[in-house]
Amino acid sequence: MSRIVYVNGRFVPFEEATIPIMDRGFLFADGIYEVSAVLGGRLVDNAAHLARLDRSLGEIGIRNPYDAAEWTRLEEELVARNGLAEGLVYMEVTRGVAERDFAFPPEGTPPTVVMFTQAKTVAANPLAERGAKVITVEDLRWKRRDIKSVALLAQVLAKQQAAAAGVAEAWMHEDGLVTEGGSSTAFIITQDGRVVTRPLSTALLPGITRRAVMRLAEEHGLTVEERAFTVEEALGAAEAFFTSASAFVMPVIEIDGSRVGGGQPGPMTRRLRGLYLEMAAAAG
Amino acid sequence: MSRIVYVNGRFVPFEEATIPIMDRGFLFADGIYEVSAVLGGRLVDNAAHLARLDRSLGEIGIRNPYDAAEWTRLEEELVARNGLAEGLVYMEVTRGVAERDFAFPPEGTPPTVVMFTQAKTVAANPLAERGAKVITVEDLRWKRRDIKSVALLAQVLAKQQAAAAGVAEAWMHEDGLVTEGGSSTAFIITQDGRVVTRPLSTALLPGITRRAVMRLAEEHGLTVEERAFTVEEALGAAEAFFTSASAFVMPVIEIDGSRVGGGQPGPMTRRLRGLYLEMAAAAG
Repeated sequence: MSRIVYVNGRFVPFEEATIPIMDRGFLFADGIYEVSAVLGGRLVDNAAHLARLDRSLGEIGIRNPYDAAEWTRLEEELVARNGLAEGLVYMEVTRGVAERDFAFPPEGTPPTVVMFTQAKTVAANPLAERGAKVITVEDLRWKRRDIKSVALLAQVLAKQQAAAAGVAEAWMHEDGLVTEGGSSTAFIITQDGRVVTRPLSTALLPGITRRAVMRLAEEHGLTVEERAFTVEEALGAAEAFFTSASAFVMPVIEIDGSRVGGGQPGPMTRRLRGLYLEMAAAAG
Repeated sequence: MSRIVYVNGRFVPFEEATIPIMDRGFLFADGIYEVSAVLGGRLVDNAAHLARLDRSLGEIGIRNPYDAAEWTRLEEELVARNGLAEGLVYMEVTRGVAERDFAFPPEGTPPTVVMFTQAKTVAANPLAERGAKVITVEDLRWKRRDIKSVALLAQVLAKQQAAAAGVAEAWMHEDGLVTEGGSSTAFIITQDGRVVTRPLSTALLPGITRRAVMRLAEEHGLTVEERAFTVEEALGAAEAFFTSASAFVMPVIEIDGSRVGGGQPGPMTRRLRGLYLEMAAAAG
């Protein structure tokens, strides 16, 4: 089965999928993206991703080209056309194609829409069994990290540092406090069993999986505390993990070369991952 | 004459110039750009732009695909093929095309190179006669503004605010101090005749025109002071202007609706613009 992607209203073979060089996504990073996981051929928590897409687009004044029902229909068609059982759907919307000029193009310039799938083992991920290592890096990003824009160069550099160090993720920090991972939300579990993650602000992305995991934790009697924490506190935590649309709940066993929680995925983290996978399977 | 652009080793008609959707410029803003002015069919201060391009690429670990001589040859051929007498050459280099993943693609992945021209009146620009108005906006950008990356969303939003306010540029500030313009360097001239601009750091781009104008000012006996200044100081300045590859030296006559220097392009600014244009014409 050849790979099919979606570009501006058409499903086309991957090899033919191009955009004009004057696309504002290419020239200015003037676009928004989302990633939804696919499990058993079905989209996970997709309505929340589409709501965040709509919100990000609104924050930078790009018209959302489709309503949630139409997005869902297109995503489902893309998943079906690619026979995707497990993996991701990537969606990007840019401010469209126009002669290069920083200010917005004329009203009515159609946004560019690109969608593709990636096949990937997300549920039975062996890394979740072993646990992930992370490094910490300075958070170099701009001041509106609540907007899921494609201006991702700082994240690219952070995650390349992680890759070069042979670890799965980079946790970014500023003013001594962890903001979030390069493409995930950072959590710790304190020695007295509280689940801690940074409160939402312009300093970090409102994670969809973050929210789902917080809700699951509370529904199962755990105490969730929204506050910032330092790298030092994370190093002394009972457990640590990160969440994202594709990693779900990923145990962290090492930060900057120091073991966390005995160097094994912690029991509460395993439980939260299990609860998330159950929810994802049930919702499908 | 139809418009010709350059994409990865080929000169192609503008209408056919595309890049794959998996280009890292489109997905991650993982690329660098430069803009050189063209005056009388010749490139202005181009060696300095190419040196900055090389430096920016090095800072984010993208291999510079060409040496300065080859870049220059390609730029000159592009200018000739488009019969461009006056305007700009835009150059962009991204980390290339690879399946979407934040970390760098495999060694040997060829960078993407795109170049195009824009015809534009840069010397006899009527705005330079009238003088430009600017607004001030919060600087939302990341912490490595010395790298000329295509992660330009913050600048897009700043310059759109300027456009919406009917003015030519937005001066960005943080911690009370002007950093630079959305696509230019900010200068003021104090009441006692000193030319002031912010010193280089990771907070701003090392402007090529900034450097040339500082050199010209000093060669002509003016005192140049590299220090940060506040919006308030700019409002009380004798003159103000901004520099860029395409604006050259642009007088500022109004900041946030308040007149600067009597609301007319100042004499020292006019002189610096004249000196710059002479240099640009002579160097060609």
